[in-house]
Amino acid sequence: MQRLHVELGERSYEIIIGIDILDEIGVFCKEIGLKGQCAIITDTNVAPLYAQKVLTSLNKTNIKGRILSIKAGEKSKNLTQLGHLLEQMANIGLDRGSFVIALGGGVVGDIAGFAAAIYMRGIPYVQVPTSLLAQVDSSVGGKTAINLKTAKNLVGSFYQPRLVVCDIKVLQTLPVREFKSGIAEIIKYGLIADAEFFSSLERELEEGLNYNLYILQKWILRSCQIKASVVQTDETESGLRAILNFGHTIGHAIENVSGYGHYLHGEAIAIGQVAAAWLSHRLLGLTTEAVNRINTIFKRASLPTTISCSEKKFEKLLMAIQKDKKTREGSPRFVLLEKIGKAVWGIEVAPALIKWAISKR
Amino acid sequence: MQRLHVELGERSYEIIIGIDILDEIGVFCKEIGLKGQCAIITDTNVAPLYAQKVLTSLNKTNIKGRILSIKAGEKSKNLTQLGHLLEQMANIGLDRGSFVIALGGGVVGDIAGFAAAIYMRGIPYVQVPTSLLAQVDSSVGGKTAINLKTAKNLVGSFYQPRLVVCDIKVLQTLPVREFKSGIAEIIKYGLIADAEFFSSLERELEEGLNYNLYILQKWILRSCQIKASVVQTDETESGLRAILNFGHTIGHAIENVSGYGHYLHGEAIAIGQVAAAWLSHRLLGLTTEAVNRINTIFKRASLPTTISCSEKKFEKLLMAIQKDKKTREGSPRFVLLEKIGKAVWGIEVAPALIKWAISKR
Repeated sequence: MQRLHVELGERSYEIIIGIDILDEIGVFCKEIGLKGQCAIITDTNVAPLYAQKVLTSLNKTNIKGRILSIKAGEKSKNLTQLGHLLEQMANIGLDRGSFVIALGGGVVGDIAGFAAAIYMRGIPYVQVPTSLLAQVDSSVGGKTAINLKTAKNLVGSFYQPRLVVCDIKVLQTLPVREFKSGIAEIIKYGLIADAEFFSSLERELEEGLNYNLYILQKWILRSCQIKASVVQTDETESGLRAILNFGHTIGHAIENVSGYGHYLHGEAIAIGQVAAAWLSHRLLGLTTEAVNRINTIFKRASLPTTISCSEKKFEKLLMAIQKDKKTREGSPRFVLLEKIGKAVWGIEVAPALIKWAISKR
Repeated sequence: MQRLHVELGERSYEIIIGIDILDEIGVFCKEIGLKGQCAIITDTNVAPLYAQKVLTSLNKTNIKGRILSIKAGEKSKNLTQLGHLLEQMANIGLDRGSFVIALGGGVVGDIAGFAAAIYMRGIPYVQVPTSLLAQVDSSVGGKTAINLKTAKNLVGSFYQPRLVVCDIKVLQTLPVREFKSGIAEIIKYGLIADAEFFSSLERELEEGLNYNLYILQKWILRSCQIKASVVQTDETESGLRAILNFGHTIGHAIENVSGYGHYLHGEAIAIGQVAAAWLSHRLLGLTTEAVNRINTIFKRASLPTTISCSEKKFEKLLMAIQKDKKTREGSPRFVLLEKIGKAVWGIEVAPALIKWAISKR
């Protein structure tokens, strides 16, 4: 078991990473002073597997838990579902001394974290991410959100969890496609911040893909370290934090245009990262050798690297990019790579070039 | 025109109080660096009176404004209306360089402020309160909220405005009943923090009630000063800020049980303040002379000071009090007065005593 401290002043918290540690959640919560009543917000996939285990662990430390389950899938991340959750939280009598556990993947983490952020203007919450994607990305950094009809994650808060508990063992029950989707975010951390980590991913990729828990724990720890160090520097995304969005400008637009759920998030950002690599080649001189390494590692993980794009579909994609919340006053700006391990942000890119990069094989 | 600085570190802002200053809003916004696009969120009562004036003022400083109007009344302060606003904000293309103006009373301020707090995880907003209640209370301090079915203001954020502009002249178009409702909050500031201010209210009450703009400006400035000094000390309500809720524990419950809109907020908290004065007499030795002065000033302002309360209605009231978000682990806690001008908080009160205080004449 490893502990990683995220330093954010009075909003500091720990990430606990270990194998088969769901049993200990009650103890972890008690350690940091959480008590009273707890809403375990989870979804219809995760609830039958792990909710009871978490509930039992809470009960052992005299915390009264209630399970609130939402329908699994990105489509639940909307305002109507949020309203239901908030009404349920009120009905079971959560007060300012209560807290929330978000037990699930990114969707559960985002909506449960947002519910905690705005219920009574904020009660504490604990992230217990059960997908690889959530363990390395969405559970760290305090971004919470729901989707609007217009665009993904358009409504939310910066609201830090009190604790993050990553149990590597739960990844064994994750569908393979979702597991691989998480690999796309891990690769991203190497690309934006750590060339040596990227090289180690190239060396050990197959072992990780075969659920070597030791390798996975190492990857998750390194990913969380990189994310934490970025978030520590720039909690509310006024500058550096933008680099975490490498591959996401196009990725989000692909998810939006294809209908949420058609591409998994990791698949969409795999395409987005390869496209951003090509843009980096054209605009910042990233070598073709580097672009090829990037393209290759996603392919080795069976992740998509390109989409076919009719004129009409591209127009929709471009509109979605322009509605992205990273856009300021109309011009889309990108995170690109100077080299593997070094990202820069705020680069304006012409629409024609975006089209070229997306379709590049 | 007077300016009051609210010191909250990097979240500091100014309150500008003056007579006939809506024309200058564009200039005020520009002064503090707001530009780009602006959503003027207002309601069906205020829009025909003042929205065009604000829009024209923005246009003069090259800020592009769009008016988004909601139905007037507390019933609009719900999640469905919030969702419509957020979708509209996305559809008109607001981005992170845009801002919101909340032009209206407390309902508009609360929902528009909350929309600004969560749209793209927070864009700037300016409060332009047009009711007396909003000028002295809800527009200062950064509390934003909507109601759930279960209770009022149960969902929201602490999110500071960039600027508050109080135009005293707009109070002349306010319905008299609403104007008097605002007086209840002004009296509260004297009671919790400034005995001399309370005495001056006793002396000058009729002049203020007759729209002497000079007197009103003085009252509003003093009220905002007191609120600002409390908020500066305790931005997120971990301690002292609780005193601002004097009269509100019972007041909110009355609003809830009677159906939102039956009693105006100021009317409900007038009853709540008189009841809290009686509780202060019983529990903290507040003199009967002081209780009588408190009772009398609300009566002079034609505000209600008591409600008839059947056994059944009282049960509902008590349940509503216990669901209030100031309640921790089940026991209702009150803000009470040691003397006029000095409040204390966190006092537990037995249900039987609450009933006695509410029905006391």
